[in-house]
Amino acid sequence: MKKYVYFFGKDNVEGNRGMRDILGGKGANLAEMSGIGVPVPPGFTVSTEACNLYLAEGGRIPDVVREEILTHLAKLEKAAGRTLGDSENPLLVSVRSGSKFSMPGMMDTILNLGLNEKTVKGLAAKSGNRRFALDCYRRLIHMFSDVVLDVPKKEFEKILKSRKDSEGLSNDFELTEEALDAVIRDYKALVQKIAGKDFPQNVTDQLFLAVSAVFNSWNTPRAITYRKLNHIPNDLGTAVNVQMMVFGNFGETSATGVGFTRNPANGAKELYGEYLMNAQGEDVVAGTRTPSPIQNMAREIPVVFEELLKITSNLENHYQDIQDFEFTVQEGRLYMLQTRNGKRTGQAAVTIAVDLVEEGLISKKKAVSMVEPDSLNQLLHPVFDLEEKSRHEELAKGLAASPGAAAGQVVFTADDAVEWKNRGKKVILVRGETSPDDIHGMSASQGILTATGGMTSHAAVVGRQMGKPAIVGCGGIVLNEEKQTFQAGSRTVSQGDWISIDGTTGEVLLGEIKTRPSEIIQVVRGEIKSEDSEIFRKFTTLLSWADEFRRLDVRANADTPEDARIAFAFGAQGIGLARTEHMFFDRERLPFIKAMILADTEAKRKENIDKLLPFQRQDFYDLFKAMKGNPVTIRTLDPPLHEFLPKKEDLMVEITELKVSGKGSPEKIKELEQLLERVVALSEFNPMLGHRGCRLGVTFPEIIEMQARAIFEAACQLAKEGEKVLPEIMVPLIGGKPEFTNQKEIIVRVAEEVIARFGARIDYTVGTMIEIPRAAITAAEVAEEAEFFSFGTNDLTQTTFGVSRDDGAAFINHYLIHGIWPDDPFQTVDIKGVGELMKWAVEKGRSTRPDLKVGICGVHGGDPRSIVFCDGLGLNYVSCSAYQIPIARLAAAQAVLNLS
Amino acid sequence: MKKYVYFFGKDNVEGNRGMRDILGGKGANLAEMSGIGVPVPPGFTVSTEACNLYLAEGGRIPDVVREEILTHLAKLEKAAGRTLGDSENPLLVSVRSGSKFSMPGMMDTILNLGLNEKTVKGLAAKSGNRRFALDCYRRLIHMFSDVVLDVPKKEFEKILKSRKDSEGLSNDFELTEEALDAVIRDYKALVQKIAGKDFPQNVTDQLFLAVSAVFNSWNTPRAITYRKLNHIPNDLGTAVNVQMMVFGNFGETSATGVGFTRNPANGAKELYGEYLMNAQGEDVVAGTRTPSPIQNMAREIPVVFEELLKITSNLENHYQDIQDFEFTVQEGRLYMLQTRNGKRTGQAAVTIAVDLVEEGLISKKKAVSMVEPDSLNQLLHPVFDLEEKSRHEELAKGLAASPGAAAGQVVFTADDAVEWKNRGKKVILVRGETSPDDIHGMSASQGILTATGGMTSHAAVVGRQMGKPAIVGCGGIVLNEEKQTFQAGSRTVSQGDWISIDGTTGEVLLGEIKTRPSEIIQVVRGEIKSEDSEIFRKFTTLLSWADEFRRLDVRANADTPEDARIAFAFGAQGIGLARTEHMFFDRERLPFIKAMILADTEAKRKENIDKLLPFQRQDFYDLFKAMKGNPVTIRTLDPPLHEFLPKKEDLMVEITELKVSGKGSPEKIKELEQLLERVVALSEFNPMLGHRGCRLGVTFPEIIEMQARAIFEAACQLAKEGEKVLPEIMVPLIGGKPEFTNQKEIIVRVAEEVIARFGARIDYTVGTMIEIPRAAITAAEVAEEAEFFSFGTNDLTQTTFGVSRDDGAAFINHYLIHGIWPDDPFQTVDIKGVGELMKWAVEKGRSTRPDLKVGICGVHGGDPRSIVFCDGLGLNYVSCSAYQIPIARLAAAQAVLNLS
Repeated sequence: MKKYVYFFGKDNVEGNRGMRDILGGKGANLAEMSGIGVPVPPGFTVSTEACNLYLAEGGRIPDVVREEILTHLAKLEKAAGRTLGDSENPLLVSVRSGSKFSMPGMMDTILNLGLNEKTVKGLAAKSGNRRFALDCYRRLIHMFSDVVLDVPKKEFEKILKSRKDSEGLSNDFELTEEALDAVIRDYKALVQKIAGKDFPQNVTDQLFLAVSAVFNSWNTPRAITYRKLNHIPNDLGTAVNVQMMVFGNFGETSATGVGFTRNPANGAKELYGEYLMNAQGEDVVAGTRTPSPIQNMAREIPVVFEELLKITSNLENHYQDIQDFEFTVQEGRLYMLQTRNGKRTGQAAVTIAVDLVEEGLISKKKAVSMVEPDSLNQLLHPVFDLEEKSRHEELAKGLAASPGAAAGQVVFTADDAVEWKNRGKKVILVRGETSPDDIHGMSASQGILTATGGMTSHAAVVGRQMGKPAIVGCGGIVLNEEKQTFQAGSRTVSQGDWISIDGTTGEVLLGEIKTRPSEIIQVVRGEIKSEDSEIFRKFTTLLSWADEFRRLDVRANADTPEDARIAFAFGAQGIGLARTEHMFFDRERLPFIKAMILADTEAKRKENIDKLLPFQRQDFYDLFKAMKGNPVTIRTLDPPLHEFLPKKEDLMVEITELKVSGKGSPEKIKELEQLLERVVALSEFNPMLGHRGCRLGVTFPEIIEMQARAIFEAACQLAKEGEKVLPEIMVPLIGGKPEFTNQKEIIVRVAEEVIARFGARIDYTVGTMIEIPRAAITAAEVAEEAEFFSFGTNDLTQTTFGVSRDDGAAFINHYLIHGIWPDDPFQTVDIKGVGELMKWAVEKGRSTRPDLKVGICGVHGGDPRSIVFCDGLGLNYVSCSAYQIPIARLAAAQAVLNLS
Repeated sequence: MKKYVYFFGKDNVEGNRGMRDILGGKGANLAEMSGIGVPVPPGFTVSTEACNLYLAEGGRIPDVVREEILTHLAKLEKAAGRTLGDSENPLLVSVRSGSKFSMPGMMDTILNLGLNEKTVKGLAAKSGNRRFALDCYRRLIHMFSDVVLDVPKKEFEKILKSRKDSEGLSNDFELTEEALDAVIRDYKALVQKIAGKDFPQNVTDQLFLAVSAVFNSWNTPRAITYRKLNHIPNDLGTAVNVQMMVFGNFGETSATGVGFTRNPANGAKELYGEYLMNAQGEDVVAGTRTPSPIQNMAREIPVVFEELLKITSNLENHYQDIQDFEFTVQEGRLYMLQTRNGKRTGQAAVTIAVDLVEEGLISKKKAVSMVEPDSLNQLLHPVFDLEEKSRHEELAKGLAASPGAAAGQVVFTADDAVEWKNRGKKVILVRGETSPDDIHGMSASQGILTATGGMTSHAAVVGRQMGKPAIVGCGGIVLNEEKQTFQAGSRTVSQGDWISIDGTTGEVLLGEIKTRPSEIIQVVRGEIKSEDSEIFRKFTTLLSWADEFRRLDVRANADTPEDARIAFAFGAQGIGLARTEHMFFDRERLPFIKAMILADTEAKRKENIDKLLPFQRQDFYDLFKAMKGNPVTIRTLDPPLHEFLPKKEDLMVEITELKVSGKGSPEKIKELEQLLERVVALSEFNPMLGHRGCRLGVTFPEIIEMQARAIFEAACQLAKEGEKVLPEIMVPLIGGKPEFTNQKEIIVRVAEEVIARFGARIDYTVGTMIEIPRAAITAAEVAEEAEFFSFGTNDLTQTTFGVSRDDGAAFINHYLIHGIWPDDPFQTVDIKGVGELMKWAVEKGRSTRPDLKVGICGVHGGDPRSIVFCDGLGLNYVSCSAYQIPIARLAAAQAVLNLS
């Protein structure tokens, strides 16, 4: 016969933590604790299967379930030595929902079930405390009627408040027995009036009504929505936990408290928590009394404290992780009510994982599995003092694009940022949006704040790349560039005003909040010796363990030697993406770029390109050198040329001004008009789908020739100096084989010519980005020529969805809120769509070139979920920003461990 | 033993037209004609296999081939009754290349091979015409040395010219024997000087050198490039045709001519062509003498004419198609040199195909197969008188976006177009580009000319939709909107000047060239009775035969009742795409649209949307009515909202003007600035990837509700009036199932509500466009909810390639010219990329919904090659502009016939 109810108690446990499917998380947990001898108030769990049966039968508790509940109730009464409804020694129980996954959308707890006019007297007599019994009864009527009978909570609160008012009291606990009698009378009248029936006096009715209410709560609209948003199946059902009540407010030898087995902020091995004597759990939460540090228990109730130490230590050993526990002491007797793995900061996570291994409690494998990769971020970014932060006014909130904390004086242009920085100021660059023109200003700033743009906007990508805090798409601020101010609500912030931004939360705050670089960053920068930093030792220890398990290589997206050096310090095994265009925005070079674009003859164009060669050669020389013989993937020129020119509308306005004011000379106007003509000719309706990537290289082969020459001259020079160099040249934005072949021919021709000239030997490969659906679809053909693939998942996501991330704000937020998109595909790989194309590309590519090397270099290369997916696809490496390398190393290891 | 050489001649033919692979096109054709008893000068073909052997052996004629050539030469000498190199009766031959596919990149013809110092005398004696023999010899030295010995042609031309100059002559044929002797002497000296060896006197050497030269010409860079561009495999090789010379210039009973078995312009059954007595083929081409109409032969050489009539009639019967032939008469004897299916106009193609069936010569199936679908276009669009056109100055040339001819006075704005038209003028609308704002002006114009934009630009799409001639991307014209002029080279064209545009060729011409609507259009418009038009009868006859074979249904893209009526007249079986947004640009409605977009509260937005309801209801009422019970697919709102607002830069300039001039009131400026703010907020970097399509419908469900209400109220009204209505509601731009489900829920809810209210019964379906790669990839899921798919291949191509067609001009032309793209994917479906996604979508979609109806409604729906592909994929219908319906009907039939 099928079993629907499971008992837990001393010497009689029918479940364990492996049974979350049928007992729910809470039920499984209570059973597990009981099973290992932890003192838990006895009780039983009505299973999720009973719930599904109940729902299938249209909301009726089946007889078979009803019988089993009654049988288990009898067992519980025996274990508790009390009886439900008994007028002398009544059993009181709590009733709680508990599904497989924690679901805030579901039923609240009902406490003190079992009280009625008769048993409340028994409880009063038995406890010798009539006020306590009345207070319990009042709470039951309130909770039960709200949850089971749909009597609005606020009506009870009104009654309670008016009673306190009439007695001139401000706290519930000040109510006298007489006042409580009156409250109970009013409560009961309210129930009769609103629910149309009396508060049930039959305690068995109370129990079955409560169980039904829990089951019904599975299908409330709120719960259904929650499941939809969190991808929880609808057919899991919820369990119901019925447990003997224990009371921390039973007198001077009773208490209640919460704690962690280790410090969840820094991971230190010490019991950490707080408690209150003669109090209930909700008193700790309500903050009406100040709890004491848990260590004080040693003085106040030493025997109990001793027992608690032993139990929590056992729990930690048993669960092999830091525990977050709740307990109650009733009349000197300790009961554990809950234990679960404790939430912790990144620093604590690393410390605890490494400590547990060093204490011999867990394996390296377990340690590597238990740290959330994203939490490593917290160890890398500057931090605000939380307490100080709470004293500052919040101006607005935007997208948390690049984590970390920064404070600085507001500037509105990149040039100002540089100038102020040179004057020794700290600045926050505030822009409508940023463009490659702003790079120098972003680099000079503490952090970046933009009014528009999304998580892959220029500001966001460059912010993460630079490891600088950035908040983007902050619609709450309105820029007035002319006046050099921005408006946030009623507050006007001017140039030079201090603001602080928290890139981890998206908060923009007024004033200066002090920050400090994290200890690990200070070590990486050489400001602290590594042997002096315990957290750095643990951090690198954990990552070195991760390296033992992972299959994927981890590379960095890095454009400069400085990026490369940091990436290398974080364990990068090469550069997966070096963008060549950022190098072009340098002040010295920009004039040649502009002249090249505006050239009206091929000769003039060539002349200006040639002037760029020495710059680029030096760039690559430095980059190769910094990577010390590891592979360096260099992408040829990618962005549309008009990015290097002024904006059309700005020119139009300038010309109009000069004309209308009569201040412009005809020559100046003519010159601007000619520039405008060229800008208009180059401007595009949809630049993302325009003349960029290899399309530039195909139409202007001389640019690619120059870049190839710079790369191979730098490589050959280093080879002559005895250094190892592994260049991998990557062609962007191909749609198929012919474009790739066209570019490869140029690159190989120049490479062979330079290598021959130097008499050097350079191992190099030529491969391509897969960032256009058609490139993925025709991967079999492309791989005939391409020696490696690297997924550019930013563009691939945009084209596969037909969505520009930067333009999409108007609907993307709506899509995420309404669950049309389960996740933001620009943050984690969309497995159903983009992932399908990636899978296709890997399979087809390797069908023609079995040893094809495949990597990923979009933002997703630093996203743990995406890394797990990439591991499953059989990629060779992921490439991410220098600061994401630790995350990627850990996620890549977990990808392997989660499968095994 | 393998055979390398094939003879053709009377009573001895070793090949036939089925052997193009090894004999090449020309060789197979000569063999075929010989085989059916047509008098062809005898000769032999050295096979393509011999060519490949020659190339494989490094450019040496293998002995086995050499032997076989000599054997066949002997046969030829026997058949001709002359011997190569014989001093009395020398055989002269022509040597021509001929591969499977016609390749202009290859070797020119060598005529008169076999002449040397000795045989030229024999030829002089035998022909009794020494001048003739010398002229033949001179031509051989020239051609042979150019082709075989690489002596530049122009050096020979110099010698010839200086000889004519010194004798004071202007024509070659005036040269005396003495002058020719001198020319030959100079030619031979030139060869010795440049080639370093004498012109070969050994005639067998001449022959083998010529054969080698043909083989070598297969691998010239020019030929390789040509093959690359035309997707001709490199390993086909070329054949060599060696054929006895015949001379049309042998005397007064000799002649040469060309002709067609029917009139290639209008298809009339009459011999059509021209000839010259005592002349060579090149004389007809050179135009130094005026040829006579072929009918004159009946008078001048009646016996030969009689024979020609018989032979060409046989050829037509044999090839079952109009023949384009060449012939030579030598001394009263007729030789056919070439026959091939004749090129013809669309009108002729239709006439001939139908006539041939009615004459009992061919089957309906054959008739349907032999007409090029695109050629039907020519029957539909207005035409220029060609002779008159040649008298007008060409101003510029652009992309031939919408075929047909139009003349009108130049206007530069849509409003002017309407105003001038209302004043009874014919206008050509000239714009930088057009936008939906210009629709009324486009509609009022004879034709459209834009300086920018590509084949799927707004002007191009709307032009084809409206059946109006359009030239787009005409970079040769420079607009000056302020002065209301455009510049084309040195010519300035002002408002009101007449120009003529030929949308079939892309030519822009100065002045008014008269046009006339085609006869078929006049019938469709009811201006001519159908029974009075023979061409209309043949046109519809051919299409009705096509209908017997095709599997695909053909529908129209039509937004207005007028479009729908024309589509219906052309045989549309329904509307495959009715865009609802064009309806919004109407002057009466645009204010409500603008107010809706600018609304700052939902109530205001709703209020303005509600005002649109009656307009939309009437739109749909008229559309349903025009389609008489056939299915009508209506797409919900698609374009980004900012299309309905003024442009950002225009507003910025206007504000600047008002401010700087001090002429604007503060209120006016404030108002404009507020509008600008809204426009900026709505403006997008990449509107194609922005807030449009169903993304609008998801975020502003009230718009979709209004549209659904309008559709179903119109449908119910008609149902009440006893009309049949089949609405199919189509959701645009989905990326996956959740967006579709969201929109479908709204549509079905409104539909059921309206249908219930009317008490009507309406069969409707809700489906989606597949125009985003992700929609195709997730088609299995989408089809769980969607009742039909319609491929939007314009957007699907843009997103699959990551290319915006309108922006791509800078590189797309380069890609097409350099063969990086074999075809323009915006004109014909890219089978490797986009096609693969389509295939996937059909298969996956039908895996979850086996009876899923699938169509296509992008521009490719009217492209014959794409239609064949769609038929192969198992689509249910194609939808194209009304004027493309005949093309689609024919192409759909050919798709079936070509496979069977």
